[in-house]
Amino acid sequence: MSPKINAAWHLASRPAGLPTAGNFEWRETNLPELGEGQAQVQTIWLSIDPTNRIWMNDADSYLPKLQLGEVMRGIGIGRVLASRDAGLQAGDLVQGMLGWQRCCVSPARALSKLPPLPLPLSAHFGLLGHIGLTAYFGLTDVAQARAGETLVVSAAAGAVGSLTVQIGRNLGMRVVAIAGGAEKCRWLSDELGADAVIDYQAEDVADGLARACPEGIDVDFENVGGRTLDAVLARINLGARIALCGLISQYNASAPEPGPSNLAHLLMQRGRMQGFIVLDYLDRAHEAAEKLIAWHLAGRLKYRLDVSDGLESAPSALRKLFTGANTGKVLVKVSDE
Amino acid sequence: MSPKINAAWHLASRPAGLPTAGNFEWRETNLPELGEGQAQVQTIWLSIDPTNRIWMNDADSYLPKLQLGEVMRGIGIGRVLASRDAGLQAGDLVQGMLGWQRCCVSPARALSKLPPLPLPLSAHFGLLGHIGLTAYFGLTDVAQARAGETLVVSAAAGAVGSLTVQIGRNLGMRVVAIAGGAEKCRWLSDELGADAVIDYQAEDVADGLARACPEGIDVDFENVGGRTLDAVLARINLGARIALCGLISQYNASAPEPGPSNLAHLLMQRGRMQGFIVLDYLDRAHEAAEKLIAWHLAGRLKYRLDVSDGLESAPSALRKLFTGANTGKVLVKVSDE
Repeated sequence: MSPKINAAWHLASRPAGLPTAGNFEWRETNLPELGEGQAQVQTIWLSIDPTNRIWMNDADSYLPKLQLGEVMRGIGIGRVLASRDAGLQAGDLVQGMLGWQRCCVSPARALSKLPPLPLPLSAHFGLLGHIGLTAYFGLTDVAQARAGETLVVSAAAGAVGSLTVQIGRNLGMRVVAIAGGAEKCRWLSDELGADAVIDYQAEDVADGLARACPEGIDVDFENVGGRTLDAVLARINLGARIALCGLISQYNASAPEPGPSNLAHLLMQRGRMQGFIVLDYLDRAHEAAEKLIAWHLAGRLKYRLDVSDGLESAPSALRKLFTGANTGKVLVKVSDE
Repeated sequence: MSPKINAAWHLASRPAGLPTAGNFEWRETNLPELGEGQAQVQTIWLSIDPTNRIWMNDADSYLPKLQLGEVMRGIGIGRVLASRDAGLQAGDLVQGMLGWQRCCVSPARALSKLPPLPLPLSAHFGLLGHIGLTAYFGLTDVAQARAGETLVVSAAAGAVGSLTVQIGRNLGMRVVAIAGGAEKCRWLSDELGADAVIDYQAEDVADGLARACPEGIDVDFENVGGRTLDAVLARINLGARIALCGLISQYNASAPEPGPSNLAHLLMQRGRMQGFIVLDYLDRAHEAAEKLIAWHLAGRLKYRLDVSDGLESAPSALRKLFTGANTGKVLVKVSDE
């Protein structure tokens, strides 16, 4: 029996800096009737990502901005409760832009049926999906990573960063991980195999890179931007590649922040900085998934979940990403599997 | 009969900002005897380039920094006066790092014999050589320029910029040229065929780009950096390429200047920014030269020389590059052909 009442977080106002409780409004509404070609989905897992913050801004990005009053956009995994589309049946597990809500009514074609996995359902967010693909294709395709090279990963204890560190190791790279706090750094070196770690809370990143990269930097998987990127640029080798995955240091800025001063190094070293968005790699998802699952089952690719319980916790879960409070993939558990 | 006395500009002190007369010292010295494998060359043309300024800094770049007291490094064309190497004969025309001096004694293997051209000797610097190759390979190889795309060229009235504008046109691109002053802009649109021009002395570059690039920017041939690059980044299209050729706005900075704030656009638009140095393309010089000469002979690739007379004028010729006083290729005529 499908629920008739929905609950959702709506965008109440645009954040200036770090999102606050006042930027979100909790609303309970009646669910609409299912139209032809639509399915009703109950959210199980919500993925909380830095990109949620980008969508809240008053500017289009790689997707249109959210409008005030809209349900917060978010990637989720859920179970089909009812369907008026031949491609989906009640009980199917799907992934899509379910939004920050208990249930959604969505065009069936906007939902992807999840293949069965020899892993928990949450692995679709911790190891695979947009997180795993970002790490895998960012490193292999965008950065053209090669064995023997020195890789720097910023925000290395985050969802994408922690996979990137290990994929780098699995590809035969020397991996230098930047993260905040002794505990994260210990996890990165002791459990994930980083060759060197830089705790940006304890050490200047430029000093850390000088110490940890005596032979320079060949590949930078950039999640942070700002001063971190500047420090990396100062030490890049000839032909270095910078995969520009995220700029989390900038997302809460209310005015434009200065970019890297050291762009001249990119010129002198014939370096390449390339932005990418995982959406462009969805048609190659199977390539990545095969590798990622095989590495994981062989014990060579671990992931950690940082789970907040209940849809109510979504706004505070988002804040974690910007205060450095999380280790691994931030998820909100909205309902039982 | 070879001269025995040389005259040269030496690096006396490192500039803070724009080079001044005091940074250079004029010295007359005896020329050394020719050793085995060496040649004595009389300079005819000196190429004055922004990179001369980079070499004066107290930091290595793509080449080691100049030491205080050394003869200013510079690319020149000259005539062999005497040779103790089987590969060169008196009378040969050569190109190489002749330095800011009347004569040099150089290892013969560091000199390239110039092929005969259906053009004046100075075309090796105005149309071909490091200037032409930079424009050609920066656009075709680094930026992967394609017909129908919108190209922005900064410092467009400079040596490299003015060739890039025309090569872009010859490749079928829509070309937007940024330069300073009405006269340069008129030259770019009326004689070189730029589809639109932005006079940065008369108009904010961001406003100019909004006006001239209603469909965004696909390729940026960046010679300037700083605010110009930031304004370009704000308008790049999906999959844009930025060929990072020069950052002339930064070369006189005594402290690091902030880089582009708009790096997030590179990420969102999956853009690529790539540094390059013409040295990496020397082995493909003939590819470029064929095209450049053919276009020139067909009237589709013009170059303009900005000639200063006499070696004495080299320091002031260098300053022109940074004050916007030059149009086209800055050369110093050191002796008659």
